[in-house]
Amino acid sequence: MSKTIPKFEVCIDSVQSAVNAENGKASRVELCSNLVEGGTTPSSGMIAAILERIKIPVMVMIRPRGGDFCYSDDEFKVMCLDIQHAKLLGAHGVVFGILKPDGNVDIDRVSKLVDFAKPLKVTFHRAFDMTNNPFKALEDIISIGGIQRILTSGHDSTVLEGLDTIIKLVKQANDRIVIMAGGGIRESNIERILSAIELKEIHVAASTTIPSAMEYKISTIHMGRAYYNSEYMINVVSEERLKEMISASDRESSK
Amino acid sequence: MSKTIPKFEVCIDSVQSAVNAENGKASRVELCSNLVEGGTTPSSGMIAAILERIKIPVMVMIRPRGGDFCYSDDEFKVMCLDIQHAKLLGAHGVVFGILKPDGNVDIDRVSKLVDFAKPLKVTFHRAFDMTNNPFKALEDIISIGGIQRILTSGHDSTVLEGLDTIIKLVKQANDRIVIMAGGGIRESNIERILSAIELKEIHVAASTTIPSAMEYKISTIHMGRAYYNSEYMINVVSEERLKEMISASDRESSK
Amino acid sequence: MSKTIPKFEVCIDSVQSAVNAENGKASRVELCSNLVEGGTTPSSGMIAAILERIKIPVMVMIRPRGGDFCYSDDEFKVMCLDIQHAKLLGAHGVVFGILKPDGNVDIDRVSKLVDFAKPLKVTFHRAFDMTNNPFKALEDIISIGGIQRILTSGHDSTVLEGLDTIIKLVKQANDRIVIMAGGGIRESNIERILSAIELKEIHVAASTTIPSAMEYKISTIHMGRAYYNSEYMINVVSEERLKEMISASDRESSK
Amino acid sequence: MSKTIPKFEVCIDSVQSAVNAENGKASRVELCSNLVEGGTTPSSGMIAAILERIKIPVMVMIRPRGGDFCYSDDEFKVMCLDIQHAKLLGAHGVVFGILKPDGNVDIDRVSKLVDFAKPLKVTFHRAFDMTNNPFKALEDIISIGGIQRILTSGHDSTVLEGLDTIIKLVKQANDRIVIMAGGGIRESNIERILSAIELKEIHVAASTTIPSAMEYKISTIHMGRAYYNSEYMINVVSEERLKEMISASDRESSK
Repeated sequence: MSKTIPKFEVCIDSVQSAVNAENGKASRVELCSNLVEGGTTPSSGMIAAILERIKIPVMVMIRPRGGDFCYSDDEFKVMCLDIQHAKLLGAHGVVFGILKPDGNVDIDRVSKLVDFAKPLKVTFHRAFDMTNNPFKALEDIISIGGIQRILTSGHDSTVLEGLDTIIKLVKQANDRIVIMAGGGIRESNIERILSAIELKEIHVAASTTIPSAMEYKISTIHMGRAYYNSEYMINVVSEERLKEMISASDRESSK
Repeated sequence: MSKTIPKFEVCIDSVQSAVNAENGKASRVELCSNLVEGGTTPSSGMIAAILERIKIPVMVMIRPRGGDFCYSDDEFKVMCLDIQHAKLLGAHGVVFGILKPDGNVDIDRVSKLVDFAKPLKVTFHRAFDMTNNPFKALEDIISIGGIQRILTSGHDSTVLEGLDTIIKLVKQANDRIVIMAGGGIRESNIERILSAIELKEIHVAASTTIPSAMEYKISTIHMGRAYYNSEYMINVVSEERLKEMISASDRESSK
Repeated sequence: MSKTIPKFEVCIDSVQSAVNAENGKASRVELCSNLVEGGTTPSSGMIAAILERIKIPVMVMIRPRGGDFCYSDDEFKVMCLDIQHAKLLGAHGVVFGILKPDGNVDIDRVSKLVDFAKPLKVTFHRAFDMTNNPFKALEDIISIGGIQRILTSGHDSTVLEGLDTIIKLVKQANDRIVIMAGGGIRESNIERILSAIELKEIHVAASTTIPSAMEYKISTIHMGRAYYNSEYMINVVSEERLKEMISASDRESSK
Repeated sequence: MSKTIPKFEVCIDSVQSAVNAENGKASRVELCSNLVEGGTTPSSGMIAAILERIKIPVMVMIRPRGGDFCYSDDEFKVMCLDIQHAKLLGAHGVVFGILKPDGNVDIDRVSKLVDFAKPLKVTFHRAFDMTNNPFKALEDIISIGGIQRILTSGHDSTVLEGLDTIIKLVKQANDRIVIMAGGGIRESNIERILSAIELKEIHVAASTTIPSAMEYKISTIHMGRAYYNSEYMINVVSEERLKEMISASDRESSK
């Protein structure tokens, strides 16, 4: 008996990527800018140009900045305005997530945004993976109503790492909401992931790096920010972490 | 005899920063998103929210992605749409720059965007510092007409490094266009810069880092992209560069 | 029936970490400097100080720089001298790997280093994961003789990602050499890894970040190198990669 | 009247760079490993191989790890051992620096290392730039005796930025110790630096990036650590910094 064939949502940040995603048979795109920081709200022109070029649904990222998911009143207002604008332009849905400082889903504010977004589709994004408890967060998000899916890497850095949690989440969700797995899914691990769990939807980047069209290049001037190793943090082996690993290994070996 | 007191333009990417800039007596703000990559076009909601909160002029960055300044037709179209939208929202000006693969200013396309932007003010941004020749680029930009200022760090990584070139550019410009110096200007070097050159306008970040409001933090999951040292590039001392430096030193010593 | 309890080798770069590893019940340490670039040859003083402080075996990384594993004659000579010195100091073993430009193991040079290292133990490190074919590389390394183990993440970014390849490698090795899995092994995934494969040895970092002892901190000066986003590379969705993923998904779904 | 022609010290981390530095007419090299973190103690083999290949003096970096300059007893011991070993190998001098948590020079420990290093030459490195007061630090270092020079970028990120402080330091030193300027000195700014100040010694990297010899490349596996944007820090415009800059600008304009 064959399993469900999952739908593929592809993360994009340009018209070219939107077209490539459609040609590559994506079911849907998630449109962001600033993927370096994990995706923020795209510009009006980018949304409009992409809606004009592809036929598959476009979900618009609503995230006013990189970093955490705890927003000021000003940032919340920006999100409201951007949802309104995405709706005006004809987007099919919006993607957001808001947490409280304690790591719980901010139910009040998410509810307001969901109301605001109607009748657009809504995805709760990987802010889910930064909550204090994914199983509680799942119930909180379902309780809000009007959210069709959650994007998650299983409360871990990648879907492969978080696979056990994703399996539990799919079971707990029990079709009340779609658990869309995303984060580090690649050609080399997708069969393994799908053999472990039946997923209705998958979120992928499927990206590649292409050289710039510039022939004249300057290597000494940079437009962006510099990153440095911190001078004031030191990495050492943790006796505790090591003991935990050895214990886990012993438990498994004596099974 | 006292010199001109320069106007300060402040680079921002949030409502909070817009308010702080106005309170700090900025003359104008440049609104971007994605400062990690040097600034890209902000979202509609961000532009609208900031225009509502501050009274000083808001210049909107029109840059469809990070990286170089040579754009596809699709990217050019996105820029046109975003200029149109910034105008609609009531922005005071727009900021952009387009180069050709050979490192010259793309006069045709820049002209089209300037026409499109009318009657908004226009700044040609630091794409200027990535041109093959800043003195030719200056004439090209003046020849287009309708561009009020050029943002430059003097074809170098910072204003302090590029000071000699900025001095030459101001002289060459001869009030036909404003040379706005920006890139690495700080409290500790601004007096030195202004003692070397009289500038009408200065562009600064004046930023600080504040902690997130989150109390519950996860350090093992990241939303953004990872950076790595390249495995396939090696740094070595260049005999040529060293000889050049020693020659320059000899020239200076024998003056 | 219980499985083998794996031995734990811990990667260290300080005396403190060496002591923590021993206290945490590590079976052995791998001593490196410069873990930021994946580990290079430690200094003489570091090797000596650690040999004095802990009783478990110390394997010394022999890698003259970060980056690739294709070395100049000068670099090869440095490796020879460092092996000699590690032996002199009383280290228990050395860790290295050399590749040819085509991605094959450099059998000649590795053989010379193995001879040179006698009677020390030898580990072939993750250069193994940068070869053009791990199954051929395994046979090449075994054919050299005198190498006790290979450190590998299964020709992939982490052990979890490369698990299928590690399983095949263990089977192929058939006790002729130890396949030591290492790369991204953590408390949260070690049971899963060990339930999929019986491993004799595991290589872990088990590290944590501790704050510096400095009370007076300067945040504007950095000692190390700056990283920047490249201005001349652009990320786009790859139609081909997306199609490959969807095909893999279809294959799995129709099983 | 011509000025002193400065001596050039070149920072190196390989035999190739040592040879290039000598060919490029360097007066001396500073040998480090791990330049990514600003330089740490090189391996025994690297020191020996370089001493064999070049005739100009080799100063050996004695720094047991990246990060701050406040060391544990274990780290201090490693430094002692490494100084002893560098002496044994025939190095011409050693380079180190130790601070106390309050940002003062650790006079006691530095004195011990200087005694230990005799009769080698000693440079106090850029830990100087992380002290709480460079003018006090200068006197502290002179008071120790036996230290020939201080490497400094003028308590700022680069020599160009810190030029005013370097000028003051040279004046204050008054030939009691050599102030060697280093940090960001390049072909494009060296004449400007030397026209502002007469320097006896200059420290440069003069480096270039060359491609690896590997023809077979894997772009998906990395040996080193990943860097990420912090999720829990937010950059905003600082009203205070902006006001400070505008004040500085006003002061300069009214001169």
